[in-house]
Order: sequence, then structure tokens, then C-alpha cells
Amino acid sequence: MERVYNFSPGPSMLPLEALSRARDEMLSQGGTGMSVMEMSHRSKAYLEIIHGAEQLLREIMSVPDNYKILFIQGGASAQFAMVPFNLFRAGRADYMQTGQFAAKAIDEASRFLTVNVVASSKDKKYSYIPELDKSKCDPEADYFHITINNTIYGTRFTTGAGTSGLPDTGGVPLVTDMSSSILSEVYDVSKFGLIYAGAQKNIGPAGLCIVIVREDLIGRAKPGTPVMMDYKTYADNESLYNTPPTFAIYMAKLVFEWVKARGGVAELQKVNEEKAALAYGFLDNAKVLRPTVAPRDRSIMNIPFVTGDEALDKKFIKEAETHGLVSLAGHRSVGGMRASIYNAMPLEGVKALVRFMEKFEMENK
Amino acid sequence: MERVYNFSPGPSMLPLEALSRARDEMLSQGGTGMSVMEMSHRSKAYLEIIHGAEQLLREIMSVPDNYKILFIQGGASAQFAMVPFNLFRAGRADYMQTGQFAAKAIDEASRFLTVNVVASSKDKKYSYIPELDKSKCDPEADYFHITINNTIYGTRFTTGAGTSGLPDTGGVPLVTDMSSSILSEVYDVSKFGLIYAGAQKNIGPAGLCIVIVREDLIGRAKPGTPVMMDYKTYADNESLYNTPPTFAIYMAKLVFEWVKARGGVAELQKVNEEKAALAYGFLDNAKVLRPTVAPRDRSIMNIPFVTGDEALDKKFIKEAETHGLVSLAGHRSVGGMRASIYNAMPLEGVKALVRFMEKFEMENK
Repeated sequence: MERVYNFSPGPSMLPLEALSRARDEMLSQGGTGMSVMEMSHRSKAYLEIIHGAEQLLREIMSVPDNYKILFIQGGASAQFAMVPFNLFRAGRADYMQTGQFAAKAIDEASRFLTVNVVASSKDKKYSYIPELDKSKCDPEADYFHITINNTIYGTRFTTGAGTSGLPDTGGVPLVTDMSSSILSEVYDVSKFGLIYAGAQKNIGPAGLCIVIVREDLIGRAKPGTPVMMDYKTYADNESLYNTPPTFAIYMAKLVFEWVKARGGVAELQKVNEEKAALAYGFLDNAKVLRPTVAPRDRSIMNIPFVTGDEALDKKFIKEAETHGLVSLAGHRSVGGMRASIYNAMPLEGVKALVRFMEKFEMENK
Repeated sequence: MERVYNFSPGPSMLPLEALSRARDEMLSQGGTGMSVMEMSHRSKAYLEIIHGAEQLLREIMSVPDNYKILFIQGGASAQFAMVPFNLFRAGRADYMQTGQFAAKAIDEASRFLTVNVVASSKDKKYSYIPELDKSKCDPEADYFHITINNTIYGTRFTTGAGTSGLPDTGGVPLVTDMSSSILSEVYDVSKFGLIYAGAQKNIGPAGLCIVIVREDLIGRAKPGTPVMMDYKTYADNESLYNTPPTFAIYMAKLVFEWVKARGGVAELQKVNEEKAALAYGFLDNAKVLRPTVAPRDRSIMNIPFVTGDEALDKKFIKEAETHGLVSLAGHRSVGGMRASIYNAMPLEGVKALVRFMEKFEMENK
């Protein structure tokens, strides 16, 4: 059975170890005589899985004790409403607009409170992270929202020493959509009031969203918040108020185990930086292909590039497929190519991509 | 690998054929070189799966053309709020209270509109379906809500010729939670304005909720409805506004294929009636064990029974496990035993249960 290198932006590659384990346990998990999918979510066997997943994530992300980890459905898109419903105090929030998902978060939040867009990079097709003019920020805002890695455009807020692009929000809770970079580099959770991440990039199957939230932000949802949109419902019931997406959480646990076995997030970050450096090292010196993001703001998860010629882009994508390099088309709103190289993409996959890029350059110069 | 007979109320047994197929395709689905979990939800391969699932469900349930089938997250619990948000017109709805989940639906809806509880069986621990006094119903209600099969208590609204227990609601749309009986017997979809069903009993893994809704009820959600709670978002985008629970939908498709291969819902209904008749035939003549539901209102999916002695109940549950008959404990709110015998429970599983019941009666009379 030949596996491809899958550069899909999400759902995307999962570690082969996790998939193989799930396959082997499909008809009987841990000697129970049933699949994880068939287990009551309140059974002892399943409670071990969901509690184990939470503990592992707490460990590999060094989540402080005063933060809850919640397993929620509905993806990041549901969080676009849940964040304002739960964090509504004065009824005002600051947002940075760094891409299409950030814009969607803004649109949805605007229906429930007053949104102040403090910075935007829409002027240049979201190809950079804009500077923040602190005088535009509201020191009394309920929260400050960013999209820390922009899947479509391949930009990110950097967090490395000396280059931190994370906004200094003072006492205002920093909230981030971390869907496309959670577990890809070391984040200091204590800098955030709330982190949410759809699972389908670095965690597991679609249909699960992880929320990591500081305890003092829970329990004050605005009146009229549906039970299933209130973080307190999940926090008070260990995410078992109703039936959670049990199999997706099991897959997440297998992925967390894989992260730990690989040496943790810091080790994966090194590999991810090597992968991105390899791709960008080639692209920065290429003739036919060129990257679209300025070096300062480059994501190490999503690498967009173009030829500048739509027909040639299509040719690249089609020929790459014949080499087992698939899902390289850019987002339908921007075109070109994009290589999403999440944790599960091995270094070898990026090497294969670069070899193909070299060949393509030779044949199309 | 020994499989058990799993009488869990949900998540519950899945057809072995569906699980085996999922196992075999785990590392490469249909020659794509990737798992379904790794596919972009917008890829051609995945679109075939989600559209195929919808078409199959439409076929096996004979869903009329003027109904949409939506794939939503959040389980039935999310629907407890989504129904009032989307069907709010005058701001009044009638509900029948036939169990704990019906009560939860009432509690949640009461926060968003005026709920009129037109009948309740709470007086006798929800052990029957109450008669409906039509004079209590509001002919101008936005909708009329029932829980057609009550998982915890083992009751159901019957739909057979001449015994129809479905309320005649006139022009008021009939809405039902069908989580624990969808696909178990033939329902006439055209009798309902809206049907919702959490997948984790007769459809597939938890984390997916199917909504079948008449088109004229879509598109008039009340102001302030979050995008992800508006049926229109799903109807307008073929449930692909954001990333759906892709693997759960794939499993649902495999189960729908299994239903079709078994001859469809009508054939499954015959087997389900035979299974229930076998269990009740024994229980009605037993000395130590006794059923708790009056014959008229008995579910063919969930069969509760008791000894009347808590210690003896525990003994039954524990000994049954040693015979490979698991998850027979009643709901924590009612105690005793409950055998949930959904579509995937083979006749042989119920026969094995009855054999064990006979043995238990002999040894404990």
C-alpha cells in the first residue's frame, strides 16, 4: 500500500504510527472486544482515553494548572461565536485582521459585540503580519484576538526570543485561533487567555476543537448563551456533558503520544524549522517558482508559492501528483501553490518536494 | 480477536462489515494513498463520500425532495437550542415530556421561547407515553416537539398502522429527536417538519448529528443566531461551510451501505421486532426479571428490566460480562438493567442474552 506525501492544508497528514495503531485496534480496543467508536463515553475504558488525552496535551504543551482543556465540536468556526458569547463583559473587543479566517472571526463577533479592528494586512492580500499601533488598542477591551498562523496566506506571528510578534495586550486577555500551528512550535500558554484549535491539522480528525482557557474566563457567559456554547458546560463536566466526539479524541490521544515519543514539541519545532528552511532555501533562489511571503512573517506550517502564470501553476500541481506529491493547490481564493507541512509531514516529504521543484525549474526555465 | 455483544445505549455497536472496511481502508482509501481522515474536505475523493452518504440516506429513508439533509456537529444537545433558534416565529412551542432528554430539550428551548408542556409522563418515571389532550395544544405554535424513542426509559411513540401514537399537530410542524430509533423502523418523513438524530446509535461514531428538515423551515432563523447554528449555513453549502466531521460522515456512509445491503429499513425493522419480541417474550414470563414498560409503549431499541433488588441487578450485570454480554447497566438515573439492541446488534446477540437470562433465572429463583 503506497502512501503519498499529502500537502493538504487540513484535514491533512496524520502520523503513520497513529493511523496504524487505530487500524490495529479498530475491531477491539485494548482487549475490550469493541472499537473505541462503540464504547459508551461513560465507560471506564473510555474515561481512560479522554482523561489520558487531556493529561498528555497538558504535558506536551506545559499547560498551567489554572487553565482548563476542553474538547468541543463545531471547529474553529463555532469558536468565532463562542469566544464573544463567553468573554462578553463591556461588549468591546480588539481584533487583528490577518487573513480570511481572521476576517470570518471578525464578522461573526461583530454580530454580538463591538469589534475594533486594530490592524489589518488586507491591503496586500494578507501577505504579511501588520505592525500594531498600540494607541489604537482599547485597554478596557474584553479580549484581543489574533490568528497566530494564517493557513491560507502562510504568515505567522513569530514567538522566538527577540522577534516576538505577539502583541503586548497588557491586562486584556489575548485570544488566538491556533488551528494551524498548535504543537508545531513551543508556545507559552500563560501568555494567552484562551487558545482554540480545530484538530484537523496537527491534532487528529476533523470534528474536534481543542480549547485551552484560563479558569477566570469561564463561568461568565452572557445571558442567552446556549448550553452547548458555554465553556462552563464543558469545564464542569470534563467535556462529558453530552457525548463528545469519542473517536476523534482517541485519535488525538494517539497523536499526542506520538508527539511525546518524538521528544515533545521542542523537538518537532526543530524538524519543522528544518523543513521550512529547506523549502524556502530553494524557493528564495529559484527562477520559475517564487515565495509570496516576506521572510519576517513566514509560517513554518504553510508555504505558498507561485510561478506568476496560472497555466504553469496548474502544470506544477498536476505533475507533482504523478510523483506522489498531492494537494499542492493554493486556496481557491488566492491560487498558485501551497505546501502545508504540518508535524506529520516527514522531512523526507519536503526533500521529495524540493527534488521535484528542482526538476520543474530545469524543465520550465 | 473476540468481539463482545455490546448492549451500550450509545455510542453502541456498529456493523462489523463497516468497521472492517474502515480498518482495511485506514492507510489508503480507494487508492488515494491517504486515510479518509487525511483528505481535504473539498477534494474530489471526499466530495464523493459526503454526497454519497447524503444520497444513500435519502434513498433508505425515502426522504422527499423538499427536505434537506444536513450534517451538523454538537449532537442532539446542540439541536435543543438550534431548533428554537431556527423555528422561532411567534415565540411559542409545544413539547411532550417523555424522558430526561425531552426534559433537557424543554429546559434549553425555554430559554429562547415560551414552552408549553402539553403532556408529561414524569409522574410514573417516564415509563409510558402519555395521552395527548388536544385542547392543550396551541394551533399557532411554532412547532410541536417529541422524543420519538426514549433511550433511558425504553418507550416509543408507535407508528404502525392503526396504532399510530404520533400526535396530529395539524399545520404545526412536528419536530422529533430520533437519535435512538432512526433507521430502526420505517418512518414517513413527510409527517415531520424536522428530524434530528445524534449518530452514535444507529448511524456511526459520535460527533455527527443528522438533521432532515423541510425546506420551508430553513432561512428564517431569529436575529443573533450564530452562523454555525443556522440551518441555512449548512443547506446553502452542502454541509461544507467549514470542515465537517469527515471521518464520522464516512463511517455513516459505510453504515448506510450496510443498511441497503441488508434489504433496507423495512427489513431491519422486521429483525428489530423479532429481537424485541424475543427479549420481551422471555421477560413477560420470567420470575426474577421483569420489564418496566407497558406493552403498548415498548421501544424495540431499548429494553429496560429489573429484578427489584439492587444487589441482584449488580450480580446480573457482572455475570453477564463473563458471558461476553456487556454494557447492560441501566442509566445511572434509573438503575436496573437495559439492553440496547440497535440495528447492529445481531439476532444472535439477543439469543445469547436470553440464554443467559434463563440461566440467571434458574440460579436465582
